[in-house]
Amino acid sequence: MTHAVAPPTASRSTLVITAHAGDFVWRGGGAIALAASRGENITVARLTFGERGESAKAWREGRKLEEIKAIRQGEAERAAATLGAEVRFFDAGDYPLLATAELTDRLVAVHRETQPDVVLTHPTEDPYNGDHPASNRMALEARILAHAVGYPGDGDIIGAPPVFCFEPHQPEMSGFRPEVLLDITEVWETKRAAMECLGAQQHLWDYYTDLAVQLRRNAGPNLGLAHRTMAEAYMRPFPQIAKEQA
Amino acid sequence: MTHAVAPPTASRSTLVITAHAGDFVWRGGGAIALAASRGENITVARLTFGERGESAKAWREGRKLEEIKAIRQGEAERAAATLGAEVRFFDAGDYPLLATAELTDRLVAVHRETQPDVVLTHPTEDPYNGDHPASNRMALEARILAHAVGYPGDGDIIGAPPVFCFEPHQPEMSGFRPEVLLDITEVWETKRAAMECLGAQQHLWDYYTDLAVQLRRNAGPNLGLAHRTMAEAYMRPFPQIAKEQA
Amino acid sequence: MTHAVAPPTASRSTLVITAHAGDFVWRGGGAIALAASRGENITVARLTFGERGESAKAWREGRKLEEIKAIRQGEAERAAATLGAEVRFFDAGDYPLLATAELTDRLVAVHRETQPDVVLTHPTEDPYNGDHPASNRMALEARILAHAVGYPGDGDIIGAPPVFCFEPHQPEMSGFRPEVLLDITEVWETKRAAMECLGAQQHLWDYYTDLAVQLRRNAGPNLGLAHRTMAEAYMRPFPQIAKEQA
Amino acid sequence: MTHAVAPPTASRSTLVITAHAGDFVWRGGGAIALAASRGENITVARLTFGERGESAKAWREGRKLEEIKAIRQGEAERAAATLGAEVRFFDAGDYPLLATAELTDRLVAVHRETQPDVVLTHPTEDPYNGDHPASNRMALEARILAHAVGYPGDGDIIGAPPVFCFEPHQPEMSGFRPEVLLDITEVWETKRAAMECLGAQQHLWDYYTDLAVQLRRNAGPNLGLAHRTMAEAYMRPFPQIAKEQA
Amino acid sequence: MTHAVAPPTASRSTLVITAHAGDFVWRGGGAIALAASRGENITVARLTFGERGESAKAWREGRKLEEIKAIRQGEAERAAATLGAEVRFFDAGDYPLLATAELTDRLVAVHRETQPDVVLTHPTEDPYNGDHPASNRMALEARILAHAVGYPGDGDIIGAPPVFCFEPHQPEMSGFRPEVLLDITEVWETKRAAMECLGAQQHLWDYYTDLAVQLRRNAGPNLGLAHRTMAEAYMRPFPQIAKEQA
Amino acid sequence: MTHAVAPPTASRSTLVITAHAGDFVWRGGGAIALAASRGENITVARLTFGERGESAKAWREGRKLEEIKAIRQGEAERAAATLGAEVRFFDAGDYPLLATAELTDRLVAVHRETQPDVVLTHPTEDPYNGDHPASNRMALEARILAHAVGYPGDGDIIGAPPVFCFEPHQPEMSGFRPEVLLDITEVWETKRAAMECLGAQQHLWDYYTDLAVQLRRNAGPNLGLAHRTMAEAYMRPFPQIAKEQA
Repeated sequence: MTHAVAPPTASRSTLVITAHAGDFVWRGGGAIALAASRGENITVARLTFGERGESAKAWREGRKLEEIKAIRQGEAERAAATLGAEVRFFDAGDYPLLATAELTDRLVAVHRETQPDVVLTHPTEDPYNGDHPASNRMALEARILAHAVGYPGDGDIIGAPPVFCFEPHQPEMSGFRPEVLLDITEVWETKRAAMECLGAQQHLWDYYTDLAVQLRRNAGPNLGLAHRTMAEAYMRPFPQIAKEQA
Repeated sequence: MTHAVAPPTASRSTLVITAHAGDFVWRGGGAIALAASRGENITVARLTFGERGESAKAWREGRKLEEIKAIRQGEAERAAATLGAEVRFFDAGDYPLLATAELTDRLVAVHRETQPDVVLTHPTEDPYNGDHPASNRMALEARILAHAVGYPGDGDIIGAPPVFCFEPHQPEMSGFRPEVLLDITEVWETKRAAMECLGAQQHLWDYYTDLAVQLRRNAGPNLGLAHRTMAEAYMRPFPQIAKEQA
Repeated sequence: MTHAVAPPTASRSTLVITAHAGDFVWRGGGAIALAASRGENITVARLTFGERGESAKAWREGRKLEEIKAIRQGEAERAAATLGAEVRFFDAGDYPLLATAELTDRLVAVHRETQPDVVLTHPTEDPYNGDHPASNRMALEARILAHAVGYPGDGDIIGAPPVFCFEPHQPEMSGFRPEVLLDITEVWETKRAAMECLGAQQHLWDYYTDLAVQLRRNAGPNLGLAHRTMAEAYMRPFPQIAKEQA
Repeated sequence: MTHAVAPPTASRSTLVITAHAGDFVWRGGGAIALAASRGENITVARLTFGERGESAKAWREGRKLEEIKAIRQGEAERAAATLGAEVRFFDAGDYPLLATAELTDRLVAVHRETQPDVVLTHPTEDPYNGDHPASNRMALEARILAHAVGYPGDGDIIGAPPVFCFEPHQPEMSGFRPEVLLDITEVWETKRAAMECLGAQQHLWDYYTDLAVQLRRNAGPNLGLAHRTMAEAYMRPFPQIAKEQA
Repeated sequence: MTHAVAPPTASRSTLVITAHAGDFVWRGGGAIALAASRGENITVARLTFGERGESAKAWREGRKLEEIKAIRQGEAERAAATLGAEVRFFDAGDYPLLATAELTDRLVAVHRETQPDVVLTHPTEDPYNGDHPASNRMALEARILAHAVGYPGDGDIIGAPPVFCFEPHQPEMSGFRPEVLLDITEVWETKRAAMECLGAQQHLWDYYTDLAVQLRRNAGPNLGLAHRTMAEAYMRPFPQIAKEQA
Repeated sequence: MTHAVAPPTASRSTLVITAHAGDFVWRGGGAIALAASRGENITVARLTFGERGESAKAWREGRKLEEIKAIRQGEAERAAATLGAEVRFFDAGDYPLLATAELTDRLVAVHRETQPDVVLTHPTEDPYNGDHPASNRMALEARILAHAVGYPGDGDIIGAPPVFCFEPHQPEMSGFRPEVLLDITEVWETKRAAMECLGAQQHLWDYYTDLAVQLRRNAGPNLGLAHRTMAEAYMRPFPQIAKEQA
């Protein structure tokens, strides 16, 4: 255990930490596809299968817990492959997902292994789903701990990668104010294809397509973004470090 | 009056709208010098000379109003020349600076003339100096009006340039949360030279030098920015439009 | 001038105070149609024609100011008739709409004349359009003044009618948190027909149709509202007075 | 375990989740008495007896823990009977009340058993008493879990009942903004009688009587509520679903 | 016009800036009586007589505007004399009180004349009465301008006196968080006597008596203040400067 | 165990509850030295040695955990002796410091033993270091529990001492608004000497010296504090109880 900051690797690395099955697709699929299109490495740390809270259709069909986990795992793997990401399953149990020191420690290890240049995760508030804020708290804490030379574990410590928080399902009720509108137009078809891997939540396909169009309204006066632009919205919990204002 | 959006010009344009004499130097001098170093056009719209509120030294020396305005104008012109910007004097009267439709209209005209790619101005709150929020309100309103094809006046309408708000003198008391840390290390000497043009406020030279160093602490865990980095902090009232997360 | 509180009239009264041409349709058309369907009187006080800020299409076609006002007036009258409301034109000038004591006084007079049981208007924040907050400030102030027996003018003083603030176009950027989801399913076809009277803003027809569907997500867990429910969202600046919790 | 949503029952159901002995009386007694007067079922889930934190008088008299619990249980049962509610004692231990997955699970079971149409509980903030926010967190989480078909346990899943949060003892220090003023005038005598069952906190009888009068000031201009109106104040963490604005 | 800071005077000075007739009594009467009991000078700058907005009883009795002003002036003078303060009448017109540069300038002059050690005024928010925020804005701006050596006018410039903002009538609806609880027990009888000079608002005598008792609840756990303590609550818009923590 | 409130002791008592090694020096050293200079008792409850999160230099030098703890303990004892305080080591483990009922109970015991007149601790937010908010939550909860006659344990219950929260390292990012500026000019040399005991964090000596000067800017207009004043900033989570406004 040397704990020097890792040397810059050949390609950039993105770490996505999400609570449930589909979160990385609905909320960050465009960002992942964009990074993949640039040849970057993307790792999705999926804390649960969304087996209890986001699989109502399967439960109504009378399926069992392990069967549902397998379904959601399969869907997620196909969606991740479509987007160009690798997915890790933590199987920490959802609804409720409990924030623990052990689970946070596993996230520290993933940070040190993947040495992310960018971290994506849920935002701090979501009054409709406590698993999302729990993921946020563990993700942000793990990033801080992974940076500390005194925190034990394998691998090199990390730097201070920027963090981007997904738009939640009810942004106005969750104190979500868009701080970054990511233009995902050029990878839209890939994101749509990944969404279509998620058969358990088919009712959301069109919802998130419409959303990607509507976010343009936040770009400013009417001409802020061109008419066919598709977007994802993010918050930044830490300041952007910039060399130029744009 | 054709009111098509102006075609992209040869070089980018930055518009800086400030209340008083020194604001564009203390708070945005690094940003201006950076833009100038890239060959961009920078226009500073200075609403007042800071003749009443920020010239205590001159008043104590017994100088008259017009004399003080001339002193502050000379300082500002030298500082602007040092940074590489053109400065316009509106002479709207400070302490208090009154927000009026007429003054806003003059700012609309400057927007349409300079066709900014970036706008810098004061933030929305400052309990210690009402001229700063007044400038903010007029600057943001003028930017919206300048975009409207139905608003009268010469020149083409503008697009929706991003806006960056300066760090105020008492950030914690003004609800200021740094959203962008601009790395101004490479133009630091230029900013310092511009500050030294402002003889009326000599006590602030070292203050703003220290501040430029200290802002690093907001970059994240200890290694966020390299040890000698100098920075300026900004808020963004509108979301960033991005093609990549960094 | 007797200034007793007016006796309860035969039918309830709704007063809608808006900045521009289409606001009462896009944002409150469902509420108006619902009230009309119950036989209530609805008065729309339209402060401007939206002639400068929301008529870009007409300006691009080369039309003149008075012509544009006439177009927007015609559209608004047709839309109001479709919804079942009477519309008053104040022609106060938009972009910017200036909040003045005179205009507020005219709104006091409308309050005292119409004796509203409910008031609808814009919310307090909208960083993309200053005319909306200006309307909010004047509407709320007029309601307070119209209640004061000492404020001069014709008509009886009013009580303390509840106020509902429209959802703005960029709710997350405007601090808008939905406090009431009004179920407008049964009058949806009427609202759509009124929207189609607004030829100058045709691009918004589908936008506001999609929005009416999507607001269901704020109703709570997935089953909060039935699948085909259409809704409008409102904030309440004052507490609800209730006899029962529901 | 079928997990269909339960069919509508003969009478409406209210579930009240509180931390301590007297909370349901001081803060929600009027709401409970109103519901009872309409023939509804009311269940009070009392997480603790308030044996440590709200029984100072008994401790000063030298009583023992079990004796104090028995006193507070007796008081609560008499008050509940007076109001027309059934009370369940969880005996989870107060001061501090610890939020645990086990206790939350017991609250899920109560939700599924009682199938509430309305839920009352503490608000999210109370810097003077951590047991109240702990109750809020568990109550809101249990309501979400009880809705999920995948969450295990007996009984049918619930819908999305509206939630009302009590006024805390120091509203201005707890970020409490009244969103609903419930007119409890007609059941005031019943609430007062229930308060008088709580001998351990006699100093609060007049306090909460005065409060019920004073809340009228939030109804709006002076005539908002009639002079003798008594009220309870509530916040709503989720939007109201309405068919009409009033 | 020398504009040195005035030398310390024999006795301390308090400046109270209020909108209407009774504000300085209901909200700050205890503070004024305390200062007077220590031999300090207190000046009340009363911007209006409250002739339209807070004299409903007189209007209902059919009195005329000038008569009402005279009544309120007489009441205020008797109350001020009871408390030990001098009152100045600005007669700027209430409901609405308009914030103007001229009125602000008159407040600058009062600051420079009275050289306050402490300033009391209304808080920044009051959704039920716009005259109170208008007073706040002018009072805070005048204090800043009165400090500037470059602002014209007679008298010496002032220092930076601490500001205390009154508790508004609906604190929870006005974002009011008590930051100072002033113990006014020893001057309570004087405040009550001053309140009883205000015959036009007799319904508020007991209201503000109860309030003075109830504020104790914010002092902390139950024993924070002794049982018979009477208090007034204030916010501080600027930090307290202290030599000791207490 | 009698649980009467303890009688006033000969000298005042200050309790400082901090997360790590240096916190009580950097953030509260001036307050401690001031209290010591008045002959008061000061107890520092240090929850951890800062062995993992704030000892990067030692880890980089290859030292072991126990060795690092010993180094930080030695430094802290020397700094405490310099300031005039007694320090207690809880050794609860940092990075992350976990908030537990057991640790809170130990803090209750310290409150009851030391009977503080003043409590100093971390503020509620710090996105860069979760150990600080964890300390805040336990400190505030322990203070409430220590006041309750029903909470078990040795010693007399406490009253309701005022609480002061330190300025965090990134105040603008932590929602920190200075509410008290403590003038520490007269003990500055002592604080500097205590800082110099902390060899592990030598890079912070000048940082906190500059900070002590810069805080003057929050005192108000330019003359708020004299030129050489040194200050520490604090928030107050509960209202100040005052007999006089200053």
